[in-house]
Amino acid sequence: MINLRPLTFLLGLFLAAVALLMWVPAGVSLYHNEGLTADFIKASLFTFTAAAIAISGGQRSQIKLSTRDLYLFTTFTWVVVSIFAALPFTFYHGITYTDAFFETMSGITTTGSTVLSGLDNTAWSILIWRSLLQWVGGIGFIVMGVAIFPMLNVGGMRLFRTESSDWSDKWLPRTHLIGRELVKVYLLLTALCCLGYLLSGMTPFEAINHAMTTLSTGGYSTTDSSMTNFSTGAHWNGTLFMWLGGLPMLLFVQMKHMRSIKVWNDQQVKGYLLFTVCAALGLGVWLSSAQDMPLFEALTLASFNLVSVITTTGFASTDYSAWGPAFAMVFLFLMFVGGCSGSTSGAVKIFRFQLAFTILKKALRLQIHPNAVIAARYNRRVISEDIVRSLISFTLLLMATIVVVSILLVAMGVDPITSFTGAITTVTNVGPGLGEVIGPAGNFATLPDGAKWLLAFSMLLGRLEIITIAVLLLPAFWRY
Amino acid sequence: MINLRPLTFLLGLFLAAVALLMWVPAGVSLYHNEGLTADFIKASLFTFTAAAIAISGGQRSQIKLSTRDLYLFTTFTWVVVSIFAALPFTFYHGITYTDAFFETMSGITTTGSTVLSGLDNTAWSILIWRSLLQWVGGIGFIVMGVAIFPMLNVGGMRLFRTESSDWSDKWLPRTHLIGRELVKVYLLLTALCCLGYLLSGMTPFEAINHAMTTLSTGGYSTTDSSMTNFSTGAHWNGTLFMWLGGLPMLLFVQMKHMRSIKVWNDQQVKGYLLFTVCAALGLGVWLSSAQDMPLFEALTLASFNLVSVITTTGFASTDYSAWGPAFAMVFLFLMFVGGCSGSTSGAVKIFRFQLAFTILKKALRLQIHPNAVIAARYNRRVISEDIVRSLISFTLLLMATIVVVSILLVAMGVDPITSFTGAITTVTNVGPGLGEVIGPAGNFATLPDGAKWLLAFSMLLGRLEIITIAVLLLPAFWRY
Ligand SMILES: [K+]
Ligand SMILES: [K+]
Repeated sequence: MINLRPLTFLLGLFLAAVALLMWVPAGVSLYHNEGLTADFIKASLFTFTAAAIAISGGQRSQIKLSTRDLYLFTTFTWVVVSIFAALPFTFYHGITYTDAFFETMSGITTTGSTVLSGLDNTAWSILIWRSLLQWVGGIGFIVMGVAIFPMLNVGGMRLFRTESSDWSDKWLPRTHLIGRELVKVYLLLTALCCLGYLLSGMTPFEAINHAMTTLSTGGYSTTDSSMTNFSTGAHWNGTLFMWLGGLPMLLFVQMKHMRSIKVWNDQQVKGYLLFTVCAALGLGVWLSSAQDMPLFEALTLASFNLVSVITTTGFASTDYSAWGPAFAMVFLFLMFVGGCSGSTSGAVKIFRFQLAFTILKKALRLQIHPNAVIAARYNRRVISEDIVRSLISFTLLLMATIVVVSILLVAMGVDPITSFTGAITTVTNVGPGLGEVIGPAGNFATLPDGAKWLLAFSMLLGRLEIITIAVLLLPAFWRY
Repeated sequence: MINLRPLTFLLGLFLAAVALLMWVPAGVSLYHNEGLTADFIKASLFTFTAAAIAISGGQRSQIKLSTRDLYLFTTFTWVVVSIFAALPFTFYHGITYTDAFFETMSGITTTGSTVLSGLDNTAWSILIWRSLLQWVGGIGFIVMGVAIFPMLNVGGMRLFRTESSDWSDKWLPRTHLIGRELVKVYLLLTALCCLGYLLSGMTPFEAINHAMTTLSTGGYSTTDSSMTNFSTGAHWNGTLFMWLGGLPMLLFVQMKHMRSIKVWNDQQVKGYLLFTVCAALGLGVWLSSAQDMPLFEALTLASFNLVSVITTTGFASTDYSAWGPAFAMVFLFLMFVGGCSGSTSGAVKIFRFQLAFTILKKALRLQIHPNAVIAARYNRRVISEDIVRSLISFTLLLMATIVVVSILLVAMGVDPITSFTGAITTVTNVGPGLGEVIGPAGNFATLPDGAKWLLAFSMLLGRLEIITIAVLLLPAFWRY
């Protein structure tokens, strides 16, 4: 049996943090006189009670968790935190618990699919709670990627690990110190992004919210029109910080401590830069000619929406599906790209494409010279067996998830375009899909409840790199 | 340098066979008084001239071909044969060479996408030429799968090879003897299928044509309405023989020579049977309830159209996209299934799904117990490294092909549904796509010429398991 008491203690701490965080929207409501303060405090006290029970029933101790415990605990924590973090939404003019849970899971997984409309008239406290969920979910994911995923061989962080342990031995021996440094970097980048938005004409409230949802590649906005009505400056600021949000945060920490920019000499980062620049230029030129648009305007639109999709942010600076169905199809493919491993972005991520290409090249060469000895390398290191296995698992599980979720959705009566692109946009943590219902101009409110729970599950699958949850389905997992 | 002369000789023999085959439609035209006899003979003489040049310029000799030579020769042969086999179409009321080549490549790869309409009023000689192309292409693919692919480690035949060599040592030491046995089985099954169609009310001409395109899982019909207007008996006969066409032909040969049905105790065959039965029942019940249709009628429709899609035949006994968009989406996914390795069917094929599932299960178990020693087995044998590599290559290349072909098609101005499903239906060798243009009720005639050449290439990619052509793109392939 798993020793549950240290885990219960840890979970209690997380819930206490959620309860504390609810005082932010409570304060906003009080300051803005929205009358929701009591509701947020109610939710906070309820959550804090649960936290207190968990902490007192738990046991603080240094335990060596097994791999199995970690898988269970990771999945369980995301679900339980969402269950409580959803409470404030339910107090707000009669949102059902299903909608509240969907919105919360979409928030903390930084997916950004929304069931809310009329955002422009929504209470600031509710809006800031959404943005906070994404911001905290984003840094939570990054820290999880550094602290937990490498132990589970999930998410490819092992690929970048030897290099980090080179330096971590010297000056950052413990995970929680790295965690603190990561939070500092994340805070600093958010502040800079906020400043940029302020300078480009956003109100302070807009700037704070969008900065939080930009850096976390979350994509929640304070208006139904997403980023459409903001200035060109705001769009370029968004493009820049979404792109930075797609970088491995750990490299900022390394750069600071090694006082060297050499850390950026990384195959993943270079691939990410190259892909973004080429794709944005290509898309801009195509858009300019297809829509007969001035090149700079086309490049601005193309860069923003491209970076938004490939970093899995999901902001829209225009309804790009209105550019024509051809663009819609290209954007659907781009949803799979993702940023770098170690960032807040979801989806396949650049390193998996690079790995796949390298492995494919080796495999094809072995087709011609079956006895050749070819070492496939990534980031100057030989690609190990477990990395290949992990890539295969991820790819197969991703395809299986999309097929199964799509079929379940159409079986619930959802139209095929919404089903197919909804499955994709949630499992990749992008947010908006295609089509009239869930496209960049729509939202998920009209879907049946079953579809909302399924899509929330798909978001969690995506966030936990699918594998973390898939192992729980193995009978072998539950046998000792 | 490759010694081209023995290859030229072989290619000449293939062309001579094509030239000879043209006398069949020539005879049909003469008998049916269609006035195309001279045209077919002209095409035949032209092809025979090319064959004669190749044979005289070549050199008959037993040579040991290198792996590289085989890759080049295989791809080259399919292209050159298509170039000549397309000639008869060009003589028929002004079809462009692009259309003729598309139709031919679609025929010999047993894809069955068509640019012709008004089939009911098309000359019998042209119709029989289309059916012959599929029938010959089908057996050509099976023999290639037994004789050439195992040497190239393409198509997974190695998985089933040890077992076959167990018995081939005893009684079939040479490839051309196996080839002859395969042709006999193929002929016998075609004759039985033809008999079934005759008994179910088809005319002899319809029965012969449909028997040829059923066994080859090709899907060309003699009427624009495909199998819609034939009897229920014809549909069940079609279902049975399409399904048989999706079996490994070699097992029939084994069964005959070992006088035992034990050869069918094969993981691939069992998986194929299980999947077909479960999917047909599920689809039938769904259709019956969704369309308020009597269960037997629904099962007939579901079985025929399901088996047609999963064996990559592409016949339609109804416009299944009219059942509603949900069915259309499910059929799109089903296009990927494919029959067994060693059959005439294309697409991913059952064994790759079984392999993927086995490998995934092993990979997930290693996620929990990283040091466990787990042997993944398929068909009672341990899955070797090169099988895993081949699976990865195929999967990645298939996805890349679909993405690249779709994007190129939309860039040519083709609508996204046609582009996406056109890419899928050609690379899987199914035939019809979805949507108004290329759906079960449409055809490929209105696409731009560039799109037709691209889709023809996609069919060839699918037929040669993509890998065979992909290695030609490696710079390493061309270096000595
Ligand atoms: K997002
Ligand atoms: K076909």
